[in-house]
Amino acid sequence: MDDLVEKLLKGERRALARAISIIENESPEKYDILKQIYPATHNSYIIGITGAPGSGKSTLVDKLITRARQDQLSVGVLAVDPSSPFSGGALLGDRIRMQEHTLDPHVFIRSMGTRGSLGGLSRATREAAKILDAYQKDLIILETVGVGQSEVDIVKYADTTALVLTPAGGDSVQTIKAGVMEIADIFVVNKADFPGTDKTCVELENMLDLGKKKDWRPSIVKTVAPENQGIDEFFSAILEHQKFLQQSGYLKEIRKERIHQELVEQVESLVSLHAWQKIESHISIMKLTEEIMEQQKDPYSSAHYLLQNFVFPASDR
Amino acid sequence: MDDLVEKLLKGERRALARAISIIENESPEKYDILKQIYPATHNSYIIGITGAPGSGKSTLVDKLITRARQDQLSVGVLAVDPSSPFSGGALLGDRIRMQEHTLDPHVFIRSMGTRGSLGGLSRATREAAKILDAYQKDLIILETVGVGQSEVDIVKYADTTALVLTPAGGDSVQTIKAGVMEIADIFVVNKADFPGTDKTCVELENMLDLGKKKDWRPSIVKTVAPENQGIDEFFSAILEHQKFLQQSGYLKEIRKERIHQELVEQVESLVSLHAWQKIESHISIMKLTEEIMEQQKDPYSSAHYLLQNFVFPASDR
Repeated sequence: MDDLVEKLLKGERRALARAISIIENESPEKYDILKQIYPATHNSYIIGITGAPGSGKSTLVDKLITRARQDQLSVGVLAVDPSSPFSGGALLGDRIRMQEHTLDPHVFIRSMGTRGSLGGLSRATREAAKILDAYQKDLIILETVGVGQSEVDIVKYADTTALVLTPAGGDSVQTIKAGVMEIADIFVVNKADFPGTDKTCVELENMLDLGKKKDWRPSIVKTVAPENQGIDEFFSAILEHQKFLQQSGYLKEIRKERIHQELVEQVESLVSLHAWQKIESHISIMKLTEEIMEQQKDPYSSAHYLLQNFVFPASDR
Repeated sequence: MDDLVEKLLKGERRALARAISIIENESPEKYDILKQIYPATHNSYIIGITGAPGSGKSTLVDKLITRARQDQLSVGVLAVDPSSPFSGGALLGDRIRMQEHTLDPHVFIRSMGTRGSLGGLSRATREAAKILDAYQKDLIILETVGVGQSEVDIVKYADTTALVLTPAGGDSVQTIKAGVMEIADIFVVNKADFPGTDKTCVELENMLDLGKKKDWRPSIVKTVAPENQGIDEFFSAILEHQKFLQQSGYLKEIRKERIHQELVEQVESLVSLHAWQKIESHISIMKLTEEIMEQQKDPYSSAHYLLQNFVFPASDR
């Protein structure tokens, strides 16, 4: 394990791929790795890109990589898609892009899918981003498919978040879910060669006029990704937002809040693990569940009983 | 509080509305209410209805209420929509429907919005459903707007879940997110007077043929809600699925699993509350966060330190 971390920090690509697999597989060694790489992190800039399926995110990300490479920036991409028997989209997009950037040692692209819960996926993505950070990628792009709460949870980890819309996609500004609009630092109106582009931009401006005033007013950028149109503007908007975050001190705030969240999650997951070990060494939860089901007990009083008798018995409080 | 519960159990409508407000406001009394009503619950049948914005769910629910009332079934509806500065959709739909059923004492409709986190909304919805259950509603309909993970979490609490699609809505079967398709016991193809209806049905059948075989093959129902077309078939499909769940024993299994989940959540929230009280009486988490930020410490070792020193000190393990 020490050897793996050493190779990762030295920049060996195979060690990087293996470390991310260890994260994805939820192997117990993962915390050793995360602990050891921690001092080498906090250098990457993280960009979140989200949008409905079919909005052209993959091509956009592709062109953004090319643009970043012109400035000699190294790039890591995590393409996140909840997999299921009915879908395999992320892998396909991944393979297509791999062809274009496969020979570039400064680009690393990886698809992440669910192996279990969606909560697990967003944690695994954050942890994989840390690995890329320790590997000293300048930019990390978190690309997610869809515009629901789980995507919001994933891109929340980004420093700058772009929401990709299309004028023709039926995802007019009004139909986009509450809670999703608010995460965007940049709106990208992709497929801007389609009719309705200007209308979409006007709707966005109106929405921003109506919404709560913030110190950063989200930029609106028009792109036609396959033709490379607007990619420079998109890249500049990212850099401009980064500059804003740095100069205002928000970047420090965001990152502090992120570390705080992480500490809280770590503590809660450890506490919960230990609490259940204590409870289950005394009592069968399935039996208690059956008693509640037969309405001999209720779940609220039962939870208090477990807490007071087995997790934190009176003697140690 | 005892008085409120008594009135609720007697069927007083104002007590019902007040109890749900107490739940929504996260008032500390809510656990007293939930504890006291618990023996009166477990009688309602819970139907979840979800689908993209614009798929016509509200009208469909409206007609479904009317249909259920023909069989003298009492109905409670919780219309769940994450609210935000940019949206107010649920409230509007609510008001329109209120007009139609407002004089019927056996119908109760309530909108639920976020007051904070989305996790909080799904918990509040489950708890409000319990109140309706204790109030002896025959049917409880959980209607959610959208097709993301948070909606899935909400309708997971239902016995029968219907996913509403439209042939014309651009939400073709392929673009629906993984993890959403799998929750449907019934697919409703609404707006079935639009072109593409048969194609959508064929796509659904194909998807079901390809997917994992289950004991229940989801039904596919075509409706034109405003014309009342297909509502009888939709209602029959619900009853048929209910019969399947009862006869196979799955209903008991589902409800047992639900109680188990509830117990687990209750325990974890109490444990976490107590653990943080213990930690914060000893140490400042913000100070620790700053030390981690300055890379003097890492979050993984720090979490272990907190656990071993303050939550479960060696002496009581």
